[in-house]
Amino acid sequence: MKSRPLSQWIAELLAAHPPRANSLLITIYGDMIAPHGGTVWLGSLIKLVEPFGINERLVRTSVFRLSREKWLVSEQIGRRSYYSLTTTGRRRFEHAYRRIYDDPRTPWDGGWQLVLMPGESPAPPQRETLRKELLWEGFAAIAPGVMAHPSAQADSLLDILQGTGTHDKVVVLQARTLGALSSRPLKELVEECWNLGHIADAYQQFIDRFRPVARVLRNTAQLDPEQCFVIRTLLMHEFRRVQLRDPQLPRQLLPADWHGDTARSLCVEIYQLCQQKTEEHLTTVLETADGPLPQAADYFYERFGGIRPDAAAAA
Amino acid sequence: MKSRPLSQWIAELLAAHPPRANSLLITIYGDMIAPHGGTVWLGSLIKLVEPFGINERLVRTSVFRLSREKWLVSEQIGRRSYYSLTTTGRRRFEHAYRRIYDDPRTPWDGGWQLVLMPGESPAPPQRETLRKELLWEGFAAIAPGVMAHPSAQADSLLDILQGTGTHDKVVVLQARTLGALSSRPLKELVEECWNLGHIADAYQQFIDRFRPVARVLRNTAQLDPEQCFVIRTLLMHEFRRVQLRDPQLPRQLLPADWHGDTARSLCVEIYQLCQQKTEEHLTTVLETADGPLPQAADYFYERFGGIRPDAAAAA
Repeated sequence: MKSRPLSQWIAELLAAHPPRANSLLITIYGDMIAPHGGTVWLGSLIKLVEPFGINERLVRTSVFRLSREKWLVSEQIGRRSYYSLTTTGRRRFEHAYRRIYDDPRTPWDGGWQLVLMPGESPAPPQRETLRKELLWEGFAAIAPGVMAHPSAQADSLLDILQGTGTHDKVVVLQARTLGALSSRPLKELVEECWNLGHIADAYQQFIDRFRPVARVLRNTAQLDPEQCFVIRTLLMHEFRRVQLRDPQLPRQLLPADWHGDTARSLCVEIYQLCQQKTEEHLTTVLETADGPLPQAADYFYERFGGIRPDAAAAA
Repeated sequence: MKSRPLSQWIAELLAAHPPRANSLLITIYGDMIAPHGGTVWLGSLIKLVEPFGINERLVRTSVFRLSREKWLVSEQIGRRSYYSLTTTGRRRFEHAYRRIYDDPRTPWDGGWQLVLMPGESPAPPQRETLRKELLWEGFAAIAPGVMAHPSAQADSLLDILQGTGTHDKVVVLQARTLGALSSRPLKELVEECWNLGHIADAYQQFIDRFRPVARVLRNTAQLDPEQCFVIRTLLMHEFRRVQLRDPQLPRQLLPADWHGDTARSLCVEIYQLCQQKTEEHLTTVLETADGPLPQAADYFYERFGGIRPDAAAAA
């Protein structure tokens, strides 16, 4: 039975922030369909996304575009079209959602990544691309031509340098803070170079928006499968949007009243509460070429450091 | 017997660059008197520096000033004044000449020292002092508010931070180059931030000035003790002046035709060639309260990675 407060909440959110079909389908494919084999019949997908106000024509245009962009690949069997997430699409999704499913907040050891761009190297168009990619990755310009991020792992950085073809055009330094990990000048540096105010606001907004949902979900004995599916989809969609802008700085460098962790706990709680009913809904609605949706793969239950099916069942 | 070409060379150098009494006395005390106990009778010191055109009055004014500045300390015994290098003076001299006697060019492991001065920290007068001290130490501003030096040892840096009271006002990073130690962007960074052209010119000038001296010294069977003493003094004086401005960058980051090593070899060679005769001259001229000058301490023979007394004796 549908909960009235949740219906109202969903309607308001969809009215205020109608999700775009493309990115909604990517979220659904990556978060929900991939663990269940990765392939579904287009007709069932159209039915699945109806609650978001996305009609058949929009879905058809969208899967066509996503196929052209190598996210999806289609297969025709008889009169039915089946769409699967490609390996590329899966990799892209995993890269984008890595920060969400895996808590990246490991204890900070004072490590830094520095990228020095001396003078005219790399030259303007490439330089700008590199700068933007590093900003996405959470780097900040601590001085003109000097980009930095307080973390020890260089993997993402090396990927970006390779990807932008700038690995032989910059100087990369692996650094370590000498002295206290949370000194005043360090915090001052962070405050000055990373735009944390905006991100703090975004986290606060996320919390304000989803806290009522968690409350209703917690206190509702019989959750509606479709509502759970819609909420989980919107949850991932919104949380990703905030996370994307979070430079993932170590706790020691953040303001004392940082809401990132609260937002994350809230996201995990809602995901857990909706989990079982969402899975029911997916099994009911979606169809593959071989009939119903296969069971979720093991990796699904490892998300967020381990999803406990009981948590939702107990609700 | 005095060599005519050397006399002429000395006269020309003294005319072109007359050394100032204070710094000349410091060089003589640190390089020559300190290893022989550190104390001499003022009368003998006055006689020692006569060849530089420094008269008694100038020496008296100078030792008075150096005493006030805690470089020297005087002791009156009967009618005679004895001047000793203070512990502070010895430490200062050793600090200034460390780079000269100890070849600092250890193989570079890609290490860097970075000092980040975020925003207004440290505040203006202190900030400028720190910046200057770091520049003296060979650091360069690789970007506004970011000073760097390619070396692994943090000792001097920590001394400077303590000394300027800025250790809790800056962020210090110990970094390591990721990738090739002599890549194009690294060399570009160095070229852009360190003013190597001026230093290269200074080394070239030193080589041009002292190469003829080495040639004459090498080919003279009987060297004159006083000339050797004057040459060694001027040598140390001039080499120090050039070294002082050398940021001591690793070989991998320097231009292919860097003359620093040549200049150094030349300095060591001349020091060796003059060594024994200079010591003779010091023993002849200088007097202590207990009579003649004591033997040179062991550490003297460890300068420049080891002075071989035979080298000069063989000449």
